[in-house]
Amino acid sequence: MNYYAKPLNKLINELSRLPGIGGKTAQRLALHILSVDDREAFALADAIREAKEKMTFCSICGNLTDRDPCSICEDAGRDPSTICVVESPKDVIAMEKIREYRGYYHVLHGVISPMDDKGPEDINLKSLITRLQDTRVKELIIATNPTIEGEATAVYIARLVKPSGIRVSRIAHGIPVGGDLEYADEVTLLKAIEGRREL
Amino acid sequence: MNYYAKPLNKLINELSRLPGIGGKTAQRLALHILSVDDREAFALADAIREAKEKMTFCSICGNLTDRDPCSICEDAGRDPSTICVVESPKDVIAMEKIREYRGYYHVLHGVISPMDDKGPEDINLKSLITRLQDTRVKELIIATNPTIEGEATAVYIARLVKPSGIRVSRIAHGIPVGGDLEYADEVTLLKAIEGRREL
Repeated sequence: MNYYAKPLNKLINELSRLPGIGGKTAQRLALHILSVDDREAFALADAIREAKEKMTFCSICGNLTDRDPCSICEDAGRDPSTICVVESPKDVIAMEKIREYRGYYHVLHGVISPMDDKGPEDINLKSLITRLQDTRVKELIIATNPTIEGEATAVYIARLVKPSGIRVSRIAHGIPVGGDLEYADEVTLLKAIEGRREL
Repeated sequence: MNYYAKPLNKLINELSRLPGIGGKTAQRLALHILSVDDREAFALADAIREAKEKMTFCSICGNLTDRDPCSICEDAGRDPSTICVVESPKDVIAMEKIREYRGYYHVLHGVISPMDDKGPEDINLKSLITRLQDTRVKELIIATNPTIEGEATAVYIARLVKPSGIRVSRIAHGIPVGGDLEYADEVTLLKAIEGRREL
């Protein structure tokens, strides 16, 4: 049912392909784009095109970047003894926001997931192994998400790397700060007890 | 805090200017756009540009269109005796979807709202008065939203038009079909009682 004129319809269709954007929202966004001035609408169109043309993946860590190697891999001021393994570029940002971690990163772009037919060769793992040949690397912090696949990937990487003598650690899972024991699920609580530390 | 490379940051910023799109959603959308293939991303950018360039307002009814007059105003098969007055192009679509109304439309692009410093001259009203000089027009259905401003605009138009002898009607407000009396607000219930019809 095409109630809208063609160009508007096309815009609504394209917008509704975005994740989490349904038909109604796409319509609202499209009408908003038509209501703003040309400069603002074209800025969005250009930003999409520019990001798509300029952004690439860092050949060292796999993070999203507009230059290769990325600004983190290029930063000689960081600690070369630690590499933090994460699932996606989003996670790099989350880690950077705590302003505490000063090592390097490695972005897997996914996890091992036999259900989705994704094996170790389908994630950015080979280049990690190459990076570990750098003798300055002393520790690998695995910060994949605490899902079944994330855990399995962590265990897989740990088994792969440990023989080389590099320390492999996993970020702690437990009750989030400000969280309430009563509302924590059993698995989280179990992890919190398993990971208890002496005071 | 610019954790992302410039082109990605720019895209996130532009996306977060859209209504209802916060920082987190903008980030998710931007990363999605980077993850899809070029063709799909460029299609979105082009759709924005094309819609913005081609869409305009119908010089007769004020609806969004890619040609002037719009396809509804140009449709000689419609009933020239009725004009339905709505606030925005979205409302035209809502009316068209019921597939019952066969008259023409008039889009006000807003309502009279003294609070927002919007008077009768700030909405698309002048051209409506001109249209009413067509002697074929017998009824004006005012379908502005049932808000204070929508009601005020309806009353204003009714007073303006009635002396000309054209019938002015207002769409009914009451309990929505499938709605529950218990959960209807008092104003809606009041409107429902006021608008009762004999069975």
